[in-house]
This record gives sequence, structure tokens and C-alpha cells, in this order.
Amino acid sequence: MAQELLRIIRENNISELRQVLQRMNSVDIAKSMEELEGKYLLLVFRLLTKDTSAEVFSYLDKESQQKIIELITDDEVKEIIENLFLDDTVDIIEELPANVVGKIISNTSLEKRKLINQFLKYEENSAGAIMTIEFIDFKEGMTIKEAIDYTRKTGVNKESLDNCFIIDRERRLKGIISLKDLILSDENMLVSDVMETNIVSVKTFEDQERVAALFKTYDLLSMPVVDIENRLVGIITVDDIVDIIEQENTEDFQKMAAMEPNEQPYLKTPVLTLAKNRIVWLLVLMISATVTGTIIQGFEDVLQSVVILASFIPMLMDTGGNSGSQSSTLVIRGLALGEITTKDFLKVIFKEFRVSIVVATVLAIVNFLRLYLFTSADLMISLTVCASLFFTVILAKVIGGVLPIISKKLKLDPAIMASPLITTIVDAFALIVYFGFAKLLLGI
Amino acid sequence: MAQELLRIIRENNISELRQVLQRMNSVDIAKSMEELEGKYLLLVFRLLTKDTSAEVFSYLDKESQQKIIELITDDEVKEIIENLFLDDTVDIIEELPANVVGKIISNTSLEKRKLINQFLKYEENSAGAIMTIEFIDFKEGMTIKEAIDYTRKTGVNKESLDNCFIIDRERRLKGIISLKDLILSDENMLVSDVMETNIVSVKTFEDQERVAALFKTYDLLSMPVVDIENRLVGIITVDDIVDIIEQENTEDFQKMAAMEPNEQPYLKTPVLTLAKNRIVWLLVLMISATVTGTIIQGFEDVLQSVVILASFIPMLMDTGGNSGSQSSTLVIRGLALGEITTKDFLKVIFKEFRVSIVVATVLAIVNFLRLYLFTSADLMISLTVCASLFFTVILAKVIGGVLPIISKKLKLDPAIMASPLITTIVDAFALIVYFGFAKLLLGI
Repeated sequence: MAQELLRIIRENNISELRQVLQRMNSVDIAKSMEELEGKYLLLVFRLLTKDTSAEVFSYLDKESQQKIIELITDDEVKEIIENLFLDDTVDIIEELPANVVGKIISNTSLEKRKLINQFLKYEENSAGAIMTIEFIDFKEGMTIKEAIDYTRKTGVNKESLDNCFIIDRERRLKGIISLKDLILSDENMLVSDVMETNIVSVKTFEDQERVAALFKTYDLLSMPVVDIENRLVGIITVDDIVDIIEQENTEDFQKMAAMEPNEQPYLKTPVLTLAKNRIVWLLVLMISATVTGTIIQGFEDVLQSVVILASFIPMLMDTGGNSGSQSSTLVIRGLALGEITTKDFLKVIFKEFRVSIVVATVLAIVNFLRLYLFTSADLMISLTVCASLFFTVILAKVIGGVLPIISKKLKLDPAIMASPLITTIVDAFALIVYFGFAKLLLGI
Repeated sequence: MAQELLRIIRENNISELRQVLQRMNSVDIAKSMEELEGKYLLLVFRLLTKDTSAEVFSYLDKESQQKIIELITDDEVKEIIENLFLDDTVDIIEELPANVVGKIISNTSLEKRKLINQFLKYEENSAGAIMTIEFIDFKEGMTIKEAIDYTRKTGVNKESLDNCFIIDRERRLKGIISLKDLILSDENMLVSDVMETNIVSVKTFEDQERVAALFKTYDLLSMPVVDIENRLVGIITVDDIVDIIEQENTEDFQKMAAMEPNEQPYLKTPVLTLAKNRIVWLLVLMISATVTGTIIQGFEDVLQSVVILASFIPMLMDTGGNSGSQSSTLVIRGLALGEITTKDFLKVIFKEFRVSIVVATVLAIVNFLRLYLFTSADLMISLTVCASLFFTVILAKVIGGVLPIISKKLKLDPAIMASPLITTIVDAFALIVYFGFAKLLLGI
């Protein structure tokens, strides 16, 4: 679509451009604009209607937002900020460089500036930081008809209108009424007769992960945010929750692959940031591998007499590592989704133990047949390898299942107990068992 | 909460029980009921009001749903099915055992049975299979007032009312109007003047993953589903999309840890199923490790003369594996979120190459200092280990970045190109480089 826009721009056909833009969705306009250079970007942005320009602006990436703010006049900045929802304004201010923020702030009304400052005080990733303040609230005594009229009068600029909120004189949250119930109810009833009083709400300081979990459990479209005195201060809408769920998942993927979490898209992350995020854990794990080195050196005599033993080390370590990371992945995921809690500690151990017996038996038998029948390994060496494999797989699975739960109990993130760390731990164990069996069975 | 219910049940205080149930959210009632045994389960279920019983039933787990269907009368089954939304009924029928399904089907009206059969024909995980048919549609010529009146008359049983749909005589989708716009618009205007015509819709056969991606891109609350002739047949709502996003993420986590994907919660999956899901990939990877074994055996003379070389193999392999899986995780995730496409092939190679140079240099220097200064390894052995480490990390990162994209190009799931497979590939390379350098630098 960006190509088509560019073609029309090159032809300098402004009226066609305006028409095409009117037919396009704001998200698509933003995506196409991101591929244009500065002057064309500005040209397209100025052709947008007042209604859409703020919306398109909120969907643009950081770089394009910055370019536009730098290029437009103060009056134009004022207009965008007036039409942006407050939570989007706050996001923009948090992400853009200081000089651009300066231009935004100096074109924002005092009242709005106060609200922005209020928002900036909420901790990152708290309910307060992700809520919006554009919602509709009714007084307890209103009839349905009065509520509908009130909505008609005030509703145009509210981001979410799917649910409206009923508050008392102290602004304490009393109930929720959906727009659907508002339309379907008898006009003469009181909102307080129709409202749902069984409310799922969060406090401003609660973590976004918990908010997302509540949305998932109760299939919500929006949720009220209250302060410690139960006064309604904002709402959170499900479209932001969808983004948060993906963000939390991305974080888990990154941590489980031994990286520092990073929200930026891959292609837009600078090389040095990527390197920095990866290097810490690689160093830690590399230095932990000193342990496995020391173990092998301790059994140098065994290796010296039967050098072929060295050739099975990679298979043993990889199979152990893979077995352990299967278990830890399932348990980490179960904990993240709330399907497993720390109370299930013993259940998980028992389950992993039984699964590992089955898996270890099959792997050991297959491997024994392969070694004994198809390679030069003799009976005793085949037995040594497969006995070690059997116990390594069992231990790997039990450790893999248990460590994430312990981590959670210690208030650490279970996601760090994933493949890389489990592999390093299981490696050491696998080698000790292996050389132990070698000494025993081969009589070295 | 289940404890409180159980206490009240034991005290046989029916009126208190009824009151408590009235105050509780349907989701919470369902969760508590799942912990009750058969006769108490039935007691609580029968105390629910007609309005809530079907909703609570849809939130129950499979086992409790089965128990209830088995215990209640045919008339009660009829009532539940009448009040359930069609997509929930279909889900229940797909998951319960045949005898229970028989009891449900024989208590379902012919008309509803036809609809259910229609639904069961949609492929699993297609838009058709996850849509619901409870939506409101307006004719093009209606005024806003007529539309509101029509909604009042027909809207009570519709699952989602946030958006209504405008269709022509052939039921082809013409536009969307939100309930918000319906309330806020002038009563005398035509719905076709107010409706949004820039519609994001999907066809019945499209994959749920694509549907979820559209919801995320366009921040939607609901989306129309059309057949190949653009006739409106259903809608998909965002609460189902939230579940699908988590399900797709869980699948990716499982595939990336070399497991067959499985939707059941961990604690409810039988031991043999868990074992079966894990064993296939473990066997494949174990047998692939034959390659590394063969490589080591090919260099037996090198190991024989410098046995200490064996002690660095685990560190080399693990660091290579970890480096590769960091890259593959970022690229797999980027592909899943649509931040990376197959067109970015060269960009990813170039990026990973630059990142890997930085990471490999730091790791190699740290490791060299550690080996040379703090262990018995001499200069040449330290150099051998660190040169191998340097090239292994670079190769691991480039392979880790590239394989998921190739996989996607070949229409395979990029998630299988994760840690376990990358590790197996990188292992072989690491060993060849390692023994190559050993021969070169140590003159063996």
C-alpha cells in the first residue's frame, strides 16, 4: 500500500491522494506513512482529516512521530494533543526524546499537563500506567433515560463506551452497566436497578500481568481502576490487554532463551543493545561450564583408557538438556497461565517422575540397540552409555519440573529456570553418572 | 471460595447458599463447583437461576460438564442447551464423550441441531469454527431509530452487541456500526450514512492465527466472518481471541522445547500423553547426535594425545547452543508477531553477523583470560579453545537467525527451528572447528 501512496505522491495528484486516504483504515495509513521520507510524510499527514490525524498519529512508530512533531507548527501540535486520548499522549511523551517532548508540553493546556504529570507518577507496568481516563460515569440516582441522554451529550470523545460506571457522591465505584443493557432496559428504571454490582476491578498500583490474568479469567472487555479508597480513577480496555499479553509472552520467550527482556521489535533494536542483552547470561553460563570441565578433568584417567567414551558425551548432554527443558517449559508455561501453582510442587514431582520413567526407558532401549547392533561399541560400553542416559533423563525431567516452582516460591521469575540453566546443571550430573558407570561396568 | 460453599452446603443452609451464589460471578461459581463432588455439584447447579445456569455451565471444565449432563433430567438438558450460545454448545459437543453427547443431541431442537452440524463441518482452528452466530444485523434502509428499536426487540440473547452489522438483500456485508455510534447519532439518519464501510473481515476457512493477527493490528473488539460470496455468517469476539493468542503462544513454547503441542493443562494431561508428546523429538535428536559421536571418533588420535581437550567440549557446545537459541528465539518470535517477514532474510543475516562479532569477541577474550591465567591450560590450548569458541558463536547466531526464516519460506513452522535442533547442528560444527584448530595450533 505504501508503494501505491508513493506513486500517487510522485504524480503530485493531491485529490486522488486525499480520496485514497479517506478509504484507508488509520492503522494502514500509519503503516504506509512509516515508509515515507520526511517531506512526503508531512504531506500525507497534513492531508488527513482532523478526525483521523490524531488517531493515525497514535499508531505511528516513534521515529515518524518524532519527525512529524519536529516539522509541524505549534498550532498543529496543539490540535493533535487535544484530540489524542490521554493514555496515548502519555505513551508518546515517555518514548520521545526531550526536545520533542518539550515542543509537545509547551503546546498542551495546563489542565492536560496536570493529568499527564499525574500519569507519569504511576509505576511502569502498573494498572495506573496503562489505564485511560476517558470513560462515562453515571450518578446512582439517574434513570436509564437520563443516562442515555447524558451519554449522548458527553460520549463522543470517550475511547471506550462498552461499559459505563455508576459512582456515588464520593466517586466511589458502585456498579457497572453495559451499553447493551442501557439500550435494552426500560427507560424509566434507575441505573442502580439494572447495574451489575459484582465488579471485577483493580487498584492503580497492581501489576499489569495480574490485570491481564483477570481479563482472561472473566472474559472482560474493560475493567475499572480504583484508588485505595475505591474511587474510580480510570478504565483499562481489552485492546491494550491484548498487547500486554503479547509483551509478557515475548518477555518469557526472551528470558527462557537466556536474554535480558527487550520490548523493541528485533529489526529496530540496535546491534549493541542486542549484543548487551545476550552477553550477560552467555558469560554466566560459560563460566558455570567450568564445573563440567573440572569433572571431565577429574576422570581423565577413565577417558585416557577408553577414549571412545568421549564420543558419547555430546549425545548424553544434549538428550539430558532437551529432556529437562521440555519439563521446565511446560511448568513455566503452566505457572504463567495459572494452571500450576506453587502448591502443586509434589504433584509436579510425581508427574515428572512417572513421565521420565517412560521416556527414559524408551530412549535407553533404542539407544542400546543402536549402539550394540550398529556401531563398534561393545556390550559393556553400550550398557554404560544407556544406564547413564536412563538416570540423566529422569533427573533432568524432575529438576526441570521442580526448579521453576522453587524459583516462583523464592519470588524470582520462573522463566529464568529454562533450557540454558537446566542444561548446565544437568550436564554436570550426566558426566558424574557417566564416568561413575564407566568405572563400575568397565572396571577402570 | 469453594471452601465457603462447602461449609454452607454441609450446614444444609439452602437459603444462605442461594444468596451467596447470587452475589458470585459466574466464572467464580464454576471454579468453585469444579471442586465439589457429584451430589453437591448437582445441588449447587440446581440452585442457580435460569439466567446464570447456562453461563456457569459454559465455564465448567469437561469433567464437571459431563457429570452434570449425566445426572440431570432431559428437560433440564433442554433448558441449558436453549440458553447456551451456539459456539459454546459446539465446543461442548466436540469435547465430551459420545454417550453424553447423545443425551445432549436428543434434547436439542431440529433447527439447532442443523446449525450445530453446520459448525462441526468447519475445520478446527478456522474462523468458521471459532465464530458465533448471535449477532445483530440491520437492513441498509433502516434509520437509526428503527435500528435502536430493532435492537431493543431482538438484542437480549445476542452474545456481543458492541458492533452491529448492515447487510443488503443478499445478506452481503455492507458496513459496521458500533453501539456507541448508534446511541450518539441523530435518530433520523440512515444507518448507511453512519456506518463504517472500511471493514476488516475474514472468510470462514481462514486460520485463527491470522484472525488473531488482524485483531491485534486493528485493535478490534469483534470481527465479521463472511463466506466466499461475502455474505455475513458470523462474528468473532475479542474474548475468544485472547484465549487463542494464549493457545498459539503455548503451542510455540511447546514446539520450541521439542514437544508435540498439546492444549490440555499440564496437571490434567495423562502421564502417557505427556510421555508420547515428548519422546518423538527426543529420539530424533538423540539419533542425530550420532553425527557428533562420529566426528569425535574421527579425531580420536587428537583426543588420545591431548586428553584435556575433552574437558572443554561441554563448555564449547553449551555456549554455541545458547548463542544459537538466543538468535532463533528472537527471530521465531519476530516472525510470529509479524515484525519480521521472509523478505528480511538478508537484514537478519547481516544483523546477526554484527551482533555475533561483538558477542563472540567478548566471550573469547574473557574465556582466554580465564583459561590462561587461572587454569592449567597452556597458551596454545587456551588459544585453540577460544578461537573455536569465537567461530562457533558466530556460526551459531547466523544459523539460529536464518533457519527459522528458511523454515517459514518452506511453509514449515519456524518454531521447530528452536534451541534443540539448532544445538544439535551447532554441536557438529563446533567439534569440527575445535579439532581443526587443535591440529593446526597444537601440531598433532
